[in-house]
This record gives sequence, C-alpha cells and structure tokens, in this order.
Amino acid sequence: MVRIAVAGASGYAGGEVLRLLLGHPHAEIGALTADSNAGRTVGEVQPHLAPLAGRVFEKTTPEVLAGHDVVFLALPHGASAALAAELGPDVLVVDCGADFRLVDAGEWERFYGSAHAGTWPYGLPELPGGREALRGARRIAVPGCYPTAVSLALWPLYAAGLVEPEAVVVAASGTSGAGRALKPHLLGSEVMGSMTPYGVGGVHRHVPEIVQNLSAVAGERVSVSFTPVLAPMPRGILATCSARAKSGVTAQAVRGALEKVYGGEEFVRVLPEGRWPSTGAVVGSNAVQVQAAYDEAAGRVVVVSAIDNLTKGTAGGAVQSMNIALGLPEGLGLSTTGVAP
Amino acid sequence: MVRIAVAGASGYAGGEVLRLLLGHPHAEIGALTADSNAGRTVGEVQPHLAPLAGRVFEKTTPEVLAGHDVVFLALPHGASAALAAELGPDVLVVDCGADFRLVDAGEWERFYGSAHAGTWPYGLPELPGGREALRGARRIAVPGCYPTAVSLALWPLYAAGLVEPEAVVVAASGTSGAGRALKPHLLGSEVMGSMTPYGVGGVHRHVPEIVQNLSAVAGERVSVSFTPVLAPMPRGILATCSARAKSGVTAQAVRGALEKVYGGEEFVRVLPEGRWPSTGAVVGSNAVQVQAAYDEAAGRVVVVSAIDNLTKGTAGGAVQSMNIALGLPEGLGLSTTGVAP
Amino acid sequence: MVRIAVAGASGYAGGEVLRLLLGHPHAEIGALTADSNAGRTVGEVQPHLAPLAGRVFEKTTPEVLAGHDVVFLALPHGASAALAAELGPDVLVVDCGADFRLVDAGEWERFYGSAHAGTWPYGLPELPGGREALRGARRIAVPGCYPTAVSLALWPLYAAGLVEPEAVVVAASGTSGAGRALKPHLLGSEVMGSMTPYGVGGVHRHVPEIVQNLSAVAGERVSVSFTPVLAPMPRGILATCSARAKSGVTAQAVRGALEKVYGGEEFVRVLPEGRWPSTGAVVGSNAVQVQAAYDEAAGRVVVVSAIDNLTKGTAGGAVQSMNIALGLPEGLGLSTTGVAP
Amino acid sequence: MVRIAVAGASGYAGGEVLRLLLGHPHAEIGALTADSNAGRTVGEVQPHLAPLAGRVFEKTTPEVLAGHDVVFLALPHGASAALAAELGPDVLVVDCGADFRLVDAGEWERFYGSAHAGTWPYGLPELPGGREALRGARRIAVPGCYPTAVSLALWPLYAAGLVEPEAVVVAASGTSGAGRALKPHLLGSEVMGSMTPYGVGGVHRHVPEIVQNLSAVAGERVSVSFTPVLAPMPRGILATCSARAKSGVTAQAVRGALEKVYGGEEFVRVLPEGRWPSTGAVVGSNAVQVQAAYDEAAGRVVVVSAIDNLTKGTAGGAVQSMNIALGLPEGLGLSTTGVAP
Repeated sequence: MVRIAVAGASGYAGGEVLRLLLGHPHAEIGALTADSNAGRTVGEVQPHLAPLAGRVFEKTTPEVLAGHDVVFLALPHGASAALAAELGPDVLVVDCGADFRLVDAGEWERFYGSAHAGTWPYGLPELPGGREALRGARRIAVPGCYPTAVSLALWPLYAAGLVEPEAVVVAASGTSGAGRALKPHLLGSEVMGSMTPYGVGGVHRHVPEIVQNLSAVAGERVSVSFTPVLAPMPRGILATCSARAKSGVTAQAVRGALEKVYGGEEFVRVLPEGRWPSTGAVVGSNAVQVQAAYDEAAGRVVVVSAIDNLTKGTAGGAVQSMNIALGLPEGLGLSTTGVAP
Repeated sequence: MVRIAVAGASGYAGGEVLRLLLGHPHAEIGALTADSNAGRTVGEVQPHLAPLAGRVFEKTTPEVLAGHDVVFLALPHGASAALAAELGPDVLVVDCGADFRLVDAGEWERFYGSAHAGTWPYGLPELPGGREALRGARRIAVPGCYPTAVSLALWPLYAAGLVEPEAVVVAASGTSGAGRALKPHLLGSEVMGSMTPYGVGGVHRHVPEIVQNLSAVAGERVSVSFTPVLAPMPRGILATCSARAKSGVTAQAVRGALEKVYGGEEFVRVLPEGRWPSTGAVVGSNAVQVQAAYDEAAGRVVVVSAIDNLTKGTAGGAVQSMNIALGLPEGLGLSTTGVAP
Repeated sequence: MVRIAVAGASGYAGGEVLRLLLGHPHAEIGALTADSNAGRTVGEVQPHLAPLAGRVFEKTTPEVLAGHDVVFLALPHGASAALAAELGPDVLVVDCGADFRLVDAGEWERFYGSAHAGTWPYGLPELPGGREALRGARRIAVPGCYPTAVSLALWPLYAAGLVEPEAVVVAASGTSGAGRALKPHLLGSEVMGSMTPYGVGGVHRHVPEIVQNLSAVAGERVSVSFTPVLAPMPRGILATCSARAKSGVTAQAVRGALEKVYGGEEFVRVLPEGRWPSTGAVVGSNAVQVQAAYDEAAGRVVVVSAIDNLTKGTAGGAVQSMNIALGLPEGLGLSTTGVAP
Repeated sequence: MVRIAVAGASGYAGGEVLRLLLGHPHAEIGALTADSNAGRTVGEVQPHLAPLAGRVFEKTTPEVLAGHDVVFLALPHGASAALAAELGPDVLVVDCGADFRLVDAGEWERFYGSAHAGTWPYGLPELPGGREALRGARRIAVPGCYPTAVSLALWPLYAAGLVEPEAVVVAASGTSGAGRALKPHLLGSEVMGSMTPYGVGGVHRHVPEIVQNLSAVAGERVSVSFTPVLAPMPRGILATCSARAKSGVTAQAVRGALEKVYGGEEFVRVLPEGRWPSTGAVVGSNAVQVQAAYDEAAGRVVVVSAIDNLTKGTAGGAVQSMNIALGLPEGLGLSTTGVAP
C-alpha cells in the first residue's frame, strides 16, 4: 500500500483527489489537511465522501504531511514550494497547483506576479515524452485543466505539421473550475441559465502553459488566442480549438494525425466520424473525447475536446501521473466510464 | 466470473446497470439488447460507457439472452414475464421494471390496468427480512425509485411504533427517472429552471408499492399521500416524508429508531444532527442519506432521504440484490462515494 | 408620476422591485441605496437593469430616502422600523422584509429572537379582506415568498370548510430566495444538480406567518408542517400543500372552492383539470398557478401552487400592494405572462 | 391598432413573438396557427402565455392568416414562400425562418438543398443601411439567432478596417434555439450538466448568413470558422468572436470602433471596460451586450456578444423590424431590462 496525504483536501480539487483515491486499490489515505476548514469533519465539507465522513481536517503543516509516500498538494499558487522543500526528496509530491508548471521564469513572473519557483516534470503523459518524464519522478506538476483539454486537442496537429503556429481556443468550463471561493459571480443564482467569458484577451494564467505545450511540439512559438467561458454546469470543459491549415491538408490527414497518437492511449478517444465530444459523457471519468473537422472554406482545422475538469483536468491527471511515477499500472483507480445522464 | 446480459441496455436504467457492472470485479458483460436502438453501437447511444463503445445492441429476444448466469431486465412494464419464462429457473433474473413488485393482484390491476404477473422477492435488502428473501433467489423484483427513497425514510418509524399509519410524501426526482422517452415536457428547454408535479392525488403507480412496504412493517394499512415532482436536475430523488407522531414521541426516540436499524447498514447513513440530505452528495453512488426532525408544534415526524434514482433507486439496488442472491459480498461493485460537486 | 426610492436595491429583491418599476407607467425611480455596494454602479451589480446602468447606489440613510412618495425597503430584518420612523406618515413605506408581518409578538420573538416592531397591513390582496386593508395604507408589510405561495394554495379550502386544521407543506424554492449572501451552499457548483431541505421541523421563520394566514381564515389554529427545499433553479416556488379532508368532501367541492375565490382574480389562475402548475410558466410574472386533487384513499386534499418567488413572492406583490394603496389599477406594471421556456 | 397573426405560434419562436406582442401597445393579436398542435389551447402548449390561455391554435392556412395587417411566420424553412404569396403585397409579412435571408442563390442551395425563394429586406437594423432597408417594407427576413449575435459583434471591426477578413467564432446557445423538436439529444437529462458542439467545420446553415453580413461591410469576402455549441440553459447566445488584427491596431481603436456605431443604438450596449457580457443579464430582453479586447500577443481582436436567442435573436428582432416597417417607435413593446437572476 502507498500511504498518501492530501493537503488542501477541503476544496474541490482536493476532494476529487480523495474521491479517486477511495477507489484506488493501492492507496491508503493518511493525513487530510485544510486551511479555514481545519477542525471540521470531511462529512461537513465534502458530504459526498461518505467513507471519510468522520475524518477531521488538520491544519496544513509540514509535520502533518510528513511520513507519507505521496503528498498531493491542492493549494493556492505560491504555497507549494515551501511545503515541498520540507517533505524530503524521496516523497512523491504531486502539485495540483500552478507553481511548477512553467519553464520560462519570465512568463511565470508576467502572469503570476511572483518569483518563479522552478519547473517539475509535467503530468500530462499523453504529450510527446510526457510519460518518460514522469517515470520515477518524485516531483510532479499537474497541468492546468484548460491546458490539459487544449493541449490534447491540438498537439497532434502540430506534431504532424498540419497547421500554422497560431491557434484560437474558446473553452467553456463548469463552475467547479473556479473552486469553492465565495465570489458573487459564482453563486448559483448568477450561474444557472447564464454564460459569461472571463480573462479575455490573453490574460488568463493558463495561456503561457498552453503556449509552452504547443510550442514544444511545433518546434516554434505557437501563438494562442484563448477565451475561457464560465458555463452553467458544475463540471466539464469543452475546448473548441482551431488553427489555420497548412496547404494540402485533408480531412483524412487530420483524422490520421489524431488516431496515430491516440490509438494506443487508454484515456484519450478519437470519436467515430460524425460524433462530437460532450462533457456530460466524461463526468467523473478520466476520459478525454476528441473529434476534428477540416473547414476548407474557412481554411481552418477545428478540434474539440471534452474532459471533466476535476478528473482528467486535475485530480485524475494527478493520480495517473502518480501511478506512472510509482511504476504502477497507469490507469489504476481511474476509469473511462462517465456518470451519465 | 458471472456472465451477465442486460435487456433494455440502451435506456437510462440499463445504462446505469452497465456502468456499475463495468466496475464489478466478478461481472463479465454478455449480451446487450435494445428495442428501437438495436443495431446501433453503445457508443452512439450511451457515449459515457466508453469501454463498451464498440459493442452493438441486439434485438431483445430469449435466444440472445440465453446462456447467461444473470439477466437484468430494464424494460417497459409488461414485457418481463414472457421473457423470464423462457430463461430457465437457474438463471438469476433481475427485473428493474414493475411487473413483479406488488403482492396484491387487485392493486396491480387498479394501477397498471393489466393482469397481475406475480410477485418476486423484493430487492430492498434494508427492509425487515429483505436480505433473507434475496439469498439464493433466482428472480428479483427491483423496487421503484420512489418506493426505495420513501420506504427507507419511513419504515423505521413504523417499526418503532412512533407514528400513525398516515404518511404524507413529496418527492422530487431528476429527469432521468422519466427515462429517455421523447416527450415534450422532458425537453431541456422545458425542464431547466422549472419544477412541476405530476401524478398528483394518489394516482402514481408507485403509491401501492410504498403502501405495501410501510404496511408490512406497521402491521396495519398505512395510507400515503404521495406527490412526485419533476426537478431540474438529471439525477437524484429527495423524498420529504412525514407522519403524525404518536403521543410521547421525542426527537431522541426518532433518531434512535433510525440509528438502530441503519447502524450496521453499508449504504444507508443517518446524518449527524443538523445536517440534511442532498441529492448532489449521492450522485453516482449507492448511498442513502437520511435525517429526521420531530416538529412538536405540528405534531409530525419529518424524515428526509436522498438517493440517486438511477443507482440505489434502480441499478445499484439491482446489483446489490444480485450480489446477495449470488452469495457475493453485498457491496461489490458499488460505492458510497458520490460524484460531487 | 409617483416618485419612488428603493432601499437595498443591490440585492435580488430590490433588483426585482426596480425591474418592475422600470415597466410601471407611473413610476419615477428616485434614490437607490445599498449597504456594502454603496458607491458602485447599478450596471456592475445588477447588469440586467440596463436602463439604470449608470446610476450609483447611495448609502441607505433616512436623508437619502426622504422626499419620495413611496419607499420600498428590501433590507435584512430588523432594519426597517428605524428607517420607517423617519420617513413620515404620508410616505408609503413598503417593507419587503419580515419586520411587520406577524400580529403575535410572542411568535415574532420566538422565531426572530428580537423585540416585535409592530404589525402593518399585509400585502396579500387575494386573502379575505386583504384588498380592503391595503386601500389608502401608508405602511405595507409584504408577505414572505413561501407564505404567499402556501396561503394562496390553502386558504380557499379553509374558507370553504373542506379540510381539517392541520396542513403539510413541502415547498421548493429557487436559489434567489436565499438572496445574494456569500454562503458555500449557495455556490453554483453546490446547487446545480442537487436538492436539499433546510429549516426542517417547524423552525423556518415563515412558519408562524403561514399559520397566521390560514388560522385567520379557518377561525381556529391551523398547525402547519412546513419543509422548505432548495432547488437547482434561480427562481420559482413550487408549493405542494395538503390537508386532511373533512368527511363528505368531493373533488368538485375542492375545485369549486378554488374557482369561487379566484374566478375574479387577475393574478391567480386555477388551471384547467389535468394540468399542474410549473414554476417555469410564471417566471418573471406576477401570476400564481393553482391546481388541486382530492386523494380519497389517503383522505387528503392536495393543492399545488407555483409562483415566481421574486415577483409575486416579493417585488410583484409589493408593487401590486402599492398600486392598491395609491388607488391605481391593481395590475399596473405587472404581468401574468411568464418568460418561458 | 395593428392586427397581427402568428403562424407557427405553438413553437418557441412563435411563443416569444406572442409574449412580446402581449406587451406591445399597438398590437391586437389575431389568428394563431399551428401544425400538429392545431386544435389545442394556447394554455396547454404555451402555459406561460396566460392572457391567451383559452385561445385555440388553428391550422396554418392562407385563409386563416388573411385579414391581418401583419403576419409573423415562425415555420420550418421552406414553408414561407407559398404562404407569403397568398397574403397580398400590402400585408407586412415577417418571416422568422431562413427562406429569404440569403442573397446568393448558390449559397442557399448549397446549405439548404432546395431552390432559392428570393431575398427580403433583412431585419437587423443595426447593420449599416439596415434601418433604411426596413422602412416601409412589407416583407422582412428576420436574421438567424447566431448571425445576429456574431454580426453585431464583428461588423464594427470590419467597418473600421481593423481586422483581416478571417474570423473565428465559437457561439454557445441555449436549447430553445433548437426548437421544440423531440430529439434525444435535447432531453433535459442529456442537456443538463453537459456541453457539446454541433454543425462543426463550416456546415451550419448560419455560416453563409454570417459571411454575407460581414463581407458586405468589409467590402471583401470574409471567411468565418463557426462552431455552435449547445449549452445547458434554456435561453441565450454567447458569441466569442475574433479576427486577426491589422497592423497598428490598438485597444483604443477597437473600443472606439464599437462605441462609434453603437453609441446611439437603443438595444446594443458596449459594456464599460473590464466587464464582460453574460447571457443571464439579457434574458427576456432585446438587449445586446458587447465587449472587446485586443490580444496583442496573439495578434487578434476578440469581441464577445450576448443576446437572448429568442428575443433579440428572433422574436425581438422581428418586432423591432416590424416597428420600423410600420413607422412606429423602434423599441415599442421591447425592453433592455433582462429578467435576472
């Protein structure tokens, strides 16, 4: 058994890590920590985690987190570096936050306004070289939810050289992506029946991460116009991505590029022709649905992906990466079966 | 391994049976049948069941269903008897429909307008004697979703002799309870942002089933005023149940009655005082949340229960009953962890 | 023109008052006040009120509210008495809060924990004598949203002597009924896809108000078991109400009792037989839909009503009452046309 | 008074026309026709239209529609031409369908697969020359809902010469945009909690209409990559539109381009800087919210617009156009106040 602590376990990301660990055959759930919810029971804050209902959140400290094989961090950005430094190099630290995702310190500082903490192996195994970077790792930076959905949709096109280095992405996310923060625009009364964009114009913090992922594959800087949209649903990201087609592209070539890289992937599925991803079909699962079209008149290739932002987009990706790092079967404790309708 | 067929696998109930069987360590999924969807792939109709995406629904016939250890029937009422008759006495037939739930032929005829097919062991193990009736059974009648939620809320009060034999129930259900039928009032445009009752005034077909369950425990006929309400959510039943308190009742006695019968139950949880059930906390799980209050001024005991109508209310109850009938651990393939938020 | 101020105009109730006043041919909108939102524009806080987008909320003080013909108060309970005292006896003060609804000081103190401020004419014109009490009034207590829905459903049965003095009510409300308070359980992520009760067991503050209304009609104390339920929709109340039938009751008598009192009402509509109220049909309107059934087997009469909690349940009832008090046509600025689907 | 008939009055578009006409001071509602709902009451099919509840839908025939000053057609495409031909040249025929929107017969045939019926004055007054084309018109083609949202977002950029002739649009629509058709993917159970694209890759029928509108302003063919997305809400379109910036573009120039053309418009509002459109704010209103950003790194201008697809996107645009054609004040019977939350 692998003994696992979760820091920030009272939030949505931490709760999803716990939900998955409860079904993971090798996981033994150890310390659960929180900030303002410390002292409350899991049952009060995360009533869906019935098997843990009587457990109590402790305050997040290095001492409480010590003595585990794996520590998941689901904390506000900026908090992970100091904690990780205290956990020892043999502990696998899986950071669901942003602190160690970016390679470029300047980009980090521009978007996050603080000093760059460093770069850890990136927890998106389906990227080229992604799986290898995670084997045996003891530090993992879990990707952002949007970068997961967008990178998986677009990188195969860049790998196959089918599109120009300028992508346009509009991605709708369920409200859990914004966490449990008490903000007026996240109230149910405001959210239900309404859609609204935010972070428009290239200012969302996931932009440099998406650019980093696509540029690495393309071998040149890919510019990305990214617009996130808050959607009236609790979970799910639907990323509608497009890029200008290079001359000579065909629909078959696009489909071939996706099938080539995802044919052997456990969690990414290129849908049969004519069917399009829906977030409802992947809720609660680690599955990624992908489909593409070549719009000849507009000269663009459109790829749409659907994920559960909390599962594949955060906690599922984290567990998948943990499995790889520990040498376990990659899909242990994860599923491609969604909870629908 | 247990070889299992599912008839009516393209509907919501059948789809949920499949979702659970995909996570059941002893289940080997055999024939999948449908009616109008025969010939289509699972992926087209149930896109969330990714591991079965390439499977094709066959037409529902006794021949296709033959040769399995267990056959789940998720069919319109009236269709089960003829099929079951052809399946042989050694096959475990688990009927998610209504045909074999009622003991009283007259009640059946009054509410269903057809001849009574008979009565099978009733798949609600948490009722007194319920588990015993299922051990070794080869025919099981899965309870209705509302009767599951309501009976589990109220029977302990009757068992403890705390309330009069007249209950009032208002139960809100997610839209999946109405199945995949193409009816105007089930369109998303109609359902979202709206609540509406139906089957008001004692005419809903689940009324005699609720009366049967509660009367059996009370030892006298319990009258039930039952109002189902269609709610703007895909899954979940919240049943608000009350009954006139007998004299001398106390809040402690009420709580004690619930804790006494549910203390050892795997799936039913009496919430800590002050917390109330929410359907969101049990989505996708076989869990039942229960809480009670004694309203002294109104002279009534109020018990509220929450279930997932498709899981504990249908497919989960079915799998739980199958496990008991086959001598497997009762909770195999089932979970008390909900998918939230 | 009637010059009108709205105190608490940045909340949901205050915003709905403004929405209606914008369509009221005699209303001239004067001061708009707020508490924590003072200094912000209407456009920032209430983006749907486009015609007022550039207006700025002032701090709620008697001075700012002075000089208007009508002042609507949409404030937390306890704040209205002091303000009203400063506004002068000729100003029509319409209090959307609870402070002046209850006649019985003891009940007030029991449920609100503070000293009773007094009793004002009650803004539910459809109650017996309700309209008369409002004519020429200069102080109006707008009913609670639940008491509006429940009283309109049940009082005709008591007026006709058809039912016993013990009612059971389960009422589902959209989230706007809880206001704009930043509470975790009101977040969209928590609310969507979930139903949960609250204030169970006779402790909700609307209980004494419902009892007061029904008892006044019945001529004896009516006990009420009341369970409010939070529903995944922004607006609407669906109240499922029942009471034990007296002997000799018939379905016709029930229907007759409703039609007799509502035949001439502009806003309350007894639906044709076989159709049931839906909250979606009354969104944004001042309409009340009512339908009843007599459940002979259970011995109960069931009446269901649907309103928009913010319109007829709060701001619409307030404007209707204002119209009566000022001698204007009762329906001015109000509508029975819902915004659907 | 203007005597008005509505053909196809039992659908969502027809119902919204009626909702608006009920609040239009010059409208006298005449014949209401339907197809499969002929013979049913308005109350049964459109329960929110309480003032018309007792009216009965007649079969759609030229005879029934004769004798009105205005006839609104809300019919499946292909049905309008024959009816209009019988209505006489002095009757104002306002077609909410697609039949007369496109100028290019080849484009019509490519996207609709039938012979081109012709081109009528286009009911989008905010386009250059749009208002003039409608004055005195007796035939009006109401724009599609997506083209309304997209054209209003992007045309000012083309008018100002700020962007290249290649736009990328992702637009999420509420389910009412798909009408009341009984299709499995429109069931509430499927729609709630899920987002899914459709008509991807340039095949949606609104593509040539958007191209037509933008190209007319740009003076050259604008290519448009358009992806519509079905969103879990009944109403609203959020259109996220972008186009490659020409060199020298600045954020001020973008804002200036929008403010210049919309400063005097009653229904289109450029939001203050920092605030973004939300569909919830415009529900039930004829308002259009617009906001823009210049993403220098990506080299694109992003404009987002929000409308109610049934109001400004269909019936509101139709009534607005009718008002202009008849010489009435353009905003009569319309509002910029949304129904929120």
